[in-house]
Amino acid sequence: MKAAVIHAPLDLRIEDADIPAMGPYDVRVRIRAGGICGSDLHYYLHGGFGTVRLKQPMILGHEIAGEVMEVGAQVSRVQPGDRVAINPSQPCGHCRFCLDGKPNHCLDMRFYGSAMRMPHVQGAFREVLVCNEVQAVPIPAALPLEKAAFAEPLAVCLHAARQAGPLLGQRVLVTGSGPIGALAVLVARQAGAREVVATDIMEAPLAIARRIGADIALNTAGDPEALTRFKADKGRFDAVFEASGSGVALAGAMEVTRPGGTIVQLGLAGGEMTLPINMLVAKEIALRGTFRFHEEFAWAVHFLATGTIDVSPLLTEIVPLSEAVRAFELAADRTRAMKVQLSL
Amino acid sequence: MKAAVIHAPLDLRIEDADIPAMGPYDVRVRIRAGGICGSDLHYYLHGGFGTVRLKQPMILGHEIAGEVMEVGAQVSRVQPGDRVAINPSQPCGHCRFCLDGKPNHCLDMRFYGSAMRMPHVQGAFREVLVCNEVQAVPIPAALPLEKAAFAEPLAVCLHAARQAGPLLGQRVLVTGSGPIGALAVLVARQAGAREVVATDIMEAPLAIARRIGADIALNTAGDPEALTRFKADKGRFDAVFEASGSGVALAGAMEVTRPGGTIVQLGLAGGEMTLPINMLVAKEIALRGTFRFHEEFAWAVHFLATGTIDVSPLLTEIVPLSEAVRAFELAADRTRAMKVQLSL
Amino acid sequence: MKAAVIHAPLDLRIEDADIPAMGPYDVRVRIRAGGICGSDLHYYLHGGFGTVRLKQPMILGHEIAGEVMEVGAQVSRVQPGDRVAINPSQPCGHCRFCLDGKPNHCLDMRFYGSAMRMPHVQGAFREVLVCNEVQAVPIPAALPLEKAAFAEPLAVCLHAARQAGPLLGQRVLVTGSGPIGALAVLVARQAGAREVVATDIMEAPLAIARRIGADIALNTAGDPEALTRFKADKGRFDAVFEASGSGVALAGAMEVTRPGGTIVQLGLAGGEMTLPINMLVAKEIALRGTFRFHEEFAWAVHFLATGTIDVSPLLTEIVPLSEAVRAFELAADRTRAMKVQLSL
Amino acid sequence: MKAAVIHAPLDLRIEDADIPAMGPYDVRVRIRAGGICGSDLHYYLHGGFGTVRLKQPMILGHEIAGEVMEVGAQVSRVQPGDRVAINPSQPCGHCRFCLDGKPNHCLDMRFYGSAMRMPHVQGAFREVLVCNEVQAVPIPAALPLEKAAFAEPLAVCLHAARQAGPLLGQRVLVTGSGPIGALAVLVARQAGAREVVATDIMEAPLAIARRIGADIALNTAGDPEALTRFKADKGRFDAVFEASGSGVALAGAMEVTRPGGTIVQLGLAGGEMTLPINMLVAKEIALRGTFRFHEEFAWAVHFLATGTIDVSPLLTEIVPLSEAVRAFELAADRTRAMKVQLSL
Repeated sequence: MKAAVIHAPLDLRIEDADIPAMGPYDVRVRIRAGGICGSDLHYYLHGGFGTVRLKQPMILGHEIAGEVMEVGAQVSRVQPGDRVAINPSQPCGHCRFCLDGKPNHCLDMRFYGSAMRMPHVQGAFREVLVCNEVQAVPIPAALPLEKAAFAEPLAVCLHAARQAGPLLGQRVLVTGSGPIGALAVLVARQAGAREVVATDIMEAPLAIARRIGADIALNTAGDPEALTRFKADKGRFDAVFEASGSGVALAGAMEVTRPGGTIVQLGLAGGEMTLPINMLVAKEIALRGTFRFHEEFAWAVHFLATGTIDVSPLLTEIVPLSEAVRAFELAADRTRAMKVQLSL
Repeated sequence: MKAAVIHAPLDLRIEDADIPAMGPYDVRVRIRAGGICGSDLHYYLHGGFGTVRLKQPMILGHEIAGEVMEVGAQVSRVQPGDRVAINPSQPCGHCRFCLDGKPNHCLDMRFYGSAMRMPHVQGAFREVLVCNEVQAVPIPAALPLEKAAFAEPLAVCLHAARQAGPLLGQRVLVTGSGPIGALAVLVARQAGAREVVATDIMEAPLAIARRIGADIALNTAGDPEALTRFKADKGRFDAVFEASGSGVALAGAMEVTRPGGTIVQLGLAGGEMTLPINMLVAKEIALRGTFRFHEEFAWAVHFLATGTIDVSPLLTEIVPLSEAVRAFELAADRTRAMKVQLSL
Repeated sequence: MKAAVIHAPLDLRIEDADIPAMGPYDVRVRIRAGGICGSDLHYYLHGGFGTVRLKQPMILGHEIAGEVMEVGAQVSRVQPGDRVAINPSQPCGHCRFCLDGKPNHCLDMRFYGSAMRMPHVQGAFREVLVCNEVQAVPIPAALPLEKAAFAEPLAVCLHAARQAGPLLGQRVLVTGSGPIGALAVLVARQAGAREVVATDIMEAPLAIARRIGADIALNTAGDPEALTRFKADKGRFDAVFEASGSGVALAGAMEVTRPGGTIVQLGLAGGEMTLPINMLVAKEIALRGTFRFHEEFAWAVHFLATGTIDVSPLLTEIVPLSEAVRAFELAADRTRAMKVQLSL
Repeated sequence: MKAAVIHAPLDLRIEDADIPAMGPYDVRVRIRAGGICGSDLHYYLHGGFGTVRLKQPMILGHEIAGEVMEVGAQVSRVQPGDRVAINPSQPCGHCRFCLDGKPNHCLDMRFYGSAMRMPHVQGAFREVLVCNEVQAVPIPAALPLEKAAFAEPLAVCLHAARQAGPLLGQRVLVTGSGPIGALAVLVARQAGAREVVATDIMEAPLAIARRIGADIALNTAGDPEALTRFKADKGRFDAVFEASGSGVALAGAMEVTRPGGTIVQLGLAGGEMTLPINMLVAKEIALRGTFRFHEEFAWAVHFLATGTIDVSPLLTEIVPLSEAVRAFELAADRTRAMKVQLSL
């Protein structure tokens, strides 16, 4: 079995890997599609992010879908031949957070392709994966696997939307229109927002943002006045999804968030940010983090399967595993790429 | 009529001032007690804070109580002889925020002793004040005026508590045990918190925090491990009131806030803060600002009047207006002072 | 000017009425489209509902749209020739509810075509209406007036949706698929519900419910087991919109609402209902009323104008004012009619 | 070992019972105090309530405290000699509700002294109880066991308070001042309510309500105008705890609940109630059920242990197990009894 293994920054290799043994509640899945996520790129380009650093070789990847090959003796939810989206989360099921309906904060979480713990949790850019049956969510025949592989990042954005409260009728700003920002645009629309404005510092992602439903898509590169029109009356937006990881974008968002509004910070940025805390205080803004997802994975599969949310415009290219290095280089080039997937 | 007028940093003068004319809905009040607030100190020591700067002489003060001397022809709520706490907020009553039950975000707010607008809004450290009848809230005979003058900062903390959600049964951290932090301790207790921990970098305020109900009061000066015991399982506290204005305190608070917990930032700190945004994201912390108050002023008067909240331990000294400079110097010395009031 | 005046049950007359005088902030509107609401029908069929009873002749109607003919001297929001949807609410703007952002609970509300107060507030099934400029919301040229006349009932359902909390990803039941129920189906979809099930006791409205987005539409007439499939695990639905006004429907809804779920009761039913309160207790269900709307009127106009919500399938027939009696008889026949409008 | 076993209405016997075997995570507890709950009384007087009916003899009781006698091999939380309050809930720990932090809705709940399932779950009015270690919550030496036995009903009321949202500064009505209503008064005070009004139809419980902190305690027996003073401006109360189980009380509460207020229905009343649903709709009242508790049991023990909540005034008499029938007769007489406990 082949897998995409990161050894050090810019040292990504296609290597043979062993197929793990199966337990009675496990399923063996032939992975077919794997999306390259921002965290995969951080490992590839920088060897990690913040305090999370590669300390041993690790298979990357956690946005995946495939076909069930074999199931354990106790498995009842899926059967061989089923096509499935894979939930890369493996919470412990016993800690206080798992028992409180918040397994994304599990004290002993295992998440594919993550160097947060030692030994690292190996990822899913591999031909064959063995996982627990609850991780394998069946999809209808009509849903292509490359769309199913969007379930994970879409779940992240659906979870983020819940941090913002009800979006029906609200005015929403999305700062940063990369893959996560673009999915946030789709989710804001799905949740009934009245207005969605997207920003970025490049034209290519903004063009996609417009195509998928942003009412306005603004290039803020070198234009400190780009959002000025939204500052009147202490700010226009009820909710902001900050998906750029830029402190400048976050500070700018505060200026156009209405008093009492919410800014949801997505993604693990480089680390520290310097914020105009006085504005947060005087406008009673809520700045909330959002981290991974839980039941929203099932929602994501549902919305993809019914076509309610169409991620097609986000898929830049499907690259064979053998050309993984080219895929990662493409994914890192925001002028050319939104979401790049590997075919496995 | 005498008033305490700030002209420039460290240039506070007791001067004669005119008594304003009265309208039909106005009341004339003989101010008796006036508490020195952190913002008064900022004007006295530094001429302002952040972008708010003294541009003309201004009477300071907004934590006040007194006796009604005379009422306008249309006044029905109070009568001469009534003892009253004065609400220093004068929202416009017409803007979108006033009509949305959020007059603390009024687009045309006038607030006593504030240099936010030009001309500045003159303050209330004066012998006689003319205000609208709705600002004058009657207090019972048994409530001393020096306690009634705590209504304003207590209202600030009651409003802050509402940003944190229900506190019944919750574990609460208060960082910074100055006057606002100490009132936050009292409010957290009043709201039914199960545990209240207070911190400061000086012993004197911590001693008061213990006296008024903090279960634990910790000196974090030079002790980066002071809160370590609360870090287990991703953090102990459900809610934090950050009342120190220190970025170090806020960052430390994030480490001991549980996933999904809320940090309420009180007060207008110097301006920018550098934050470990990754921790906010990974723990889905909500960092919320809180600004002034609305109906909580009436709550504050009620809790003071019934003795449910006892602010006596916070009152350091009552200083005659003629010694206002000494009063401000005392208020600025946290080793000696919690709340200093002027008698007017 | 002609108007549709109700004198007593089944005594609806087309009569001449005076055109009111205009004030400086008023606009004169040539009403073109007027939808017949359930409350209009109650006045027509029964002379009122509950304790609200006709005591004098009253012009009916409050779901209206038209063209601005003339504007007062101080009007700035609209000009002659503008096409507008009319908000029939006239809150006082001064009471505690108006100042708390809840004018739908105004202590001195005037609402078109309502016998709640004496003298009754005359309604808007008339050729010419004079109203305040804030009631006249401009619509784009592309929006037909008959669609604009849906703004009011759509606003009711948008407001109802907010009582249910976020609907993104939720499973929703709508009991009663008349005009309000059908609009609730559309709103649940707009708010991102994952599943929408509608019920009724007649086939005709169920067919429309299916057409506009209900995943399942069930006829519960004489079939006590119609919802049985949704009872497993203490109930399937996160949120219910009860739009039938039937106690049987409400009790049935409780059986299929999940623990902690919300049932929103729409509309003013006949009066009392007998409920299985033990089930509400044991499942910790929240039963919430919803009444009229506020800023949701603007949302409704926006969603109609952008075509995000398409109400076309709900419009049964447009009947000339001269045939108003036929229009009301048609509207009262649920086998034939969903929404009947008058052309004025 | 002796136990109090109900065989049929009014047929309560003190009988010998076997001491169950212990598992490795179990503890054996010498029960000392057991409070008689309303549901115990329903079994004693009527053989059950609603659809819950005695079908076999059952030991009653679930408000209990005692001393640990022996612990299983794997027990780490308590040791012999510890004094403990016992949580009578035994959720399964695996169902969707247990994994969602809502074990009070467990699909396979076992709760002491309940005839909801067959065979019935035997109760805890017995000399010796074997339970899982997580059910035995240690209490400090200073807390008498008869106070510790209030932990369960106090937890019920703390959980109920959370259904009402934040109570800080709120005006609260408690209808029905029996044991649950009286504890609701204490909890409303603990949560910082500004005003607490209690009602009942008997003087004895009202006297206790006044003593424990109700600002006003009103006898509504035969006085339909008792609450009239609270009807102004559409109703005075932000939150209501309905603890009488009376439809008349609930309907009366609706009249004095402010628009947008919440009524929490406590307890399992007889079954159906007839409600003025029009008022619920027009005032947008939320009527919410509350059922049992979860983490609030630990809160209750904490508040009892620290003396923050003092339940002493509620304890009518402690009766020896041998006189259990007299104890139940006393408990059933509201003119004489608030809470009656058995000593075991």
